[in-house]
Amino acid sequence: MQKVVLIRHGESIWNLENRFTGWTDVDLSEEGARQAYRAGQLLKKHDYNFDAGFTSMLKRSIKTLHYILEELDHLWIPVTKSWRLNERYYGALQGMNKDEAIAQYGIDQVHKWRRDTNEHPPVVTKDDDRYPGKDLRYRLLTERELPLTENLSETMDRVLPFWNEIIVPVIRQNQKVVICAHGNSLRALIKYMDNLTDEQVADLEIPTATPWVYELDEGLNTIRHYYLE
Amino acid sequence: MQKVVLIRHGESIWNLENRFTGWTDVDLSEEGARQAYRAGQLLKKHDYNFDAGFTSMLKRSIKTLHYILEELDHLWIPVTKSWRLNERYYGALQGMNKDEAIAQYGIDQVHKWRRDTNEHPPVVTKDDDRYPGKDLRYRLLTERELPLTENLSETMDRVLPFWNEIIVPVIRQNQKVVICAHGNSLRALIKYMDNLTDEQVADLEIPTATPWVYELDEGLNTIRHYYLE
Repeated sequence: MQKVVLIRHGESIWNLENRFTGWTDVDLSEEGARQAYRAGQLLKKHDYNFDAGFTSMLKRSIKTLHYILEELDHLWIPVTKSWRLNERYYGALQGMNKDEAIAQYGIDQVHKWRRDTNEHPPVVTKDDDRYPGKDLRYRLLTERELPLTENLSETMDRVLPFWNEIIVPVIRQNQKVVICAHGNSLRALIKYMDNLTDEQVADLEIPTATPWVYELDEGLNTIRHYYLE
Repeated sequence: MQKVVLIRHGESIWNLENRFTGWTDVDLSEEGARQAYRAGQLLKKHDYNFDAGFTSMLKRSIKTLHYILEELDHLWIPVTKSWRLNERYYGALQGMNKDEAIAQYGIDQVHKWRRDTNEHPPVVTKDDDRYPGKDLRYRLLTERELPLTENLSETMDRVLPFWNEIIVPVIRQNQKVVICAHGNSLRALIKYMDNLTDEQVADLEIPTATPWVYELDEGLNTIRHYYLE
């Protein structure tokens, strides 16, 4: 049996401001940093430790993982950062307050954008400052990989190669793995791991900075999962 | 022309207490953390940025690099941590106050241990808690690689393969590199890069958390070097 720990980053400034964030590189709020330290203390209390960490290219996740590893006194483990673990790319909604979006587009449409696996938020254009092709950190991505918008299904399409090709081989070496990522990149991963339907994943809410333990059998099928408390 | 930036970690708690540290995983002092942030601000002021970071497996360097990258808004770059960039392994002196060492062994001997390239500090035994073979993070090292003591020449022997095989290929790809390490692992590297004699390296003092820019020609020979201020 193998345990993998999934953690959504601590509260960000835009979680607090109720804005669509996506790939915007928003920092943790002060409470978010405290949540990350508390997650580390909780893992320590339960004697968890890790051989390898994985996170996105966004600072709210990178810092959350750093604070957790600081509490565990395991800052020395290798940490791999990948755009494939980034939050879902929210297109032209990025930066918009969620209540304003409801006022402008109606609650049903906003709910669909947030929860329907196949619904696309409005696209950004390539001259928009929010287009990831303008961000140095994504300079090695092909144009096909650079999103203009993403539904959850497309987020899955780019998360899963990282899971299967990068993380799974590390688990197969009996290394203990922690993945610190985002609400929707984790939902995408879980949809795959637990073989959830579109309806099931629509109801899946992941709390911030709460260690979520997945126990996997030798075939990496889920035996059970639970939050630490 | 290529620039490589070398940085010694910020002040640690044992720098402050005037103890031999070596591979002891001592944290930054509060002032050390502030020094690291200031180093990041200084690099930012001079428009420096990096594509790849390298550091040791010791938290005083890992955290210094993290704080620098936080100030540069470049936390997303890959950071490689290696025991080969660790501080010189100070054997049985680790933990000892430097004044006590002088009282016990005499100032000439202590000076030799600190500055003579070929002088070995007293060894630890393998049942000593300070023996690195007892530390999980070094579990993949061979017994020959696990030090009982180290002189600067031996520190060089394990730093240089990392420089030549891991860092140089990244520089060759025209990536901008930052190396955050320790007084003696940096002295070892500089002895090699600048082809210093044992006498020359004995006088080399590296200040904490001060960006040290090396300009290299195509053959990676030093053109000039200077501290940022």
